[in-house]
Amino acid sequence: MNLEEKTLSSECVYDGKIMTVCRDEVEISTGRKSFREIVQHSGGVVIAALKDENTILAVKQFRYPLKKTILELPAGKLEKGEDPALAAARELEEETGYKAKNWKSLGYIYTSPGYSDEKLYLYLATDLEFVGEHPDDGEILKNYEFPLDEFIKQVKSGEIADAKTVCAIMRAFYD
Amino acid sequence: MNLEEKTLSSECVYDGKIMTVCRDEVEISTGRKSFREIVQHSGGVVIAALKDENTILAVKQFRYPLKKTILELPAGKLEKGEDPALAAARELEEETGYKAKNWKSLGYIYTSPGYSDEKLYLYLATDLEFVGEHPDDGEILKNYEFPLDEFIKQVKSGEIADAKTVCAIMRAFYD
Repeated sequence: MNLEEKTLSSECVYDGKIMTVCRDEVEISTGRKSFREIVQHSGGVVIAALKDENTILAVKQFRYPLKKTILELPAGKLEKGEDPALAAARELEEETGYKAKNWKSLGYIYTSPGYSDEKLYLYLATDLEFVGEHPDDGEILKNYEFPLDEFIKQVKSGEIADAKTVCAIMRAFYD
Repeated sequence: MNLEEKTLSSECVYDGKIMTVCRDEVEISTGRKSFREIVQHSGGVVIAALKDENTILAVKQFRYPLKKTILELPAGKLEKGEDPALAAARELEEETGYKAKNWKSLGYIYTSPGYSDEKLYLYLATDLEFVGEHPDDGEILKNYEFPLDEFIKQVKSGEIADAKTVCAIMRAFYD
């Protein structure tokens, strides 16, 4: 069975700072035509950073689309053409003030493949050294250190509901 | 530290079928003004459905934003005002042809809280009975049955990269 969808036409209805939104007409394999609304996003990085064996760094941020503050792992958007591994190092330092000597890739995830092309690269960072914070302009966040086992418990129970955080914890700490 | 952001004005730049896109001017706690681009989405449900102790149901779908076919758990959008538990039963049957007698909530996730309000409710479904497929109009997918341990291995290795699938597997099958 052919699942592919062919683009017949594309109209970009919004070209913003962090996203472009397009409405494409597609032909599905049955010959039927349909529309697809899609968000184009630069993608980003997510870092599970261990200060020591049982201490993980986390951030609290007001997430405007949700109108509330939630707990997440440090993360950030890729700049155009930026190498994900370099972006991870940059974001970790910007958000927490730490540099890591030891990096391990945990692959990537698609956050919402039904309507967005956002792809996030996940990392485990260890051997940390504090070098001082340089927060992004216009981004205000609060730093936390958690016992790793407590953080994992909150991911599992649903108290921590940020998808990228759940995914990075799963890939980093479960067999 | 106050992390909250106050809405100064909101302009919805696209009102589509599955999303509304708005550009809001906000005031952050320092008094500084900034813009937030946000996607409003109905949210949805994700189902980890076990046919037997070691067999999980999965679907392959062409995800147009990615321009490729990926493997995911059965999932679908909430209809307006729909109860997530009822939506999960509806989507499982639509996508796989199975009804489940036994449902367990696995909480929810925010797929991309930086720019979207999408919230997905996760479920574990067991005690399945095949009642026949009723695929959604305009949605073509291919059904699979996987040994659960092999599926989990692919989630862990990154071969399965769909975030909602990783999250549901983590909440359903890990302690």
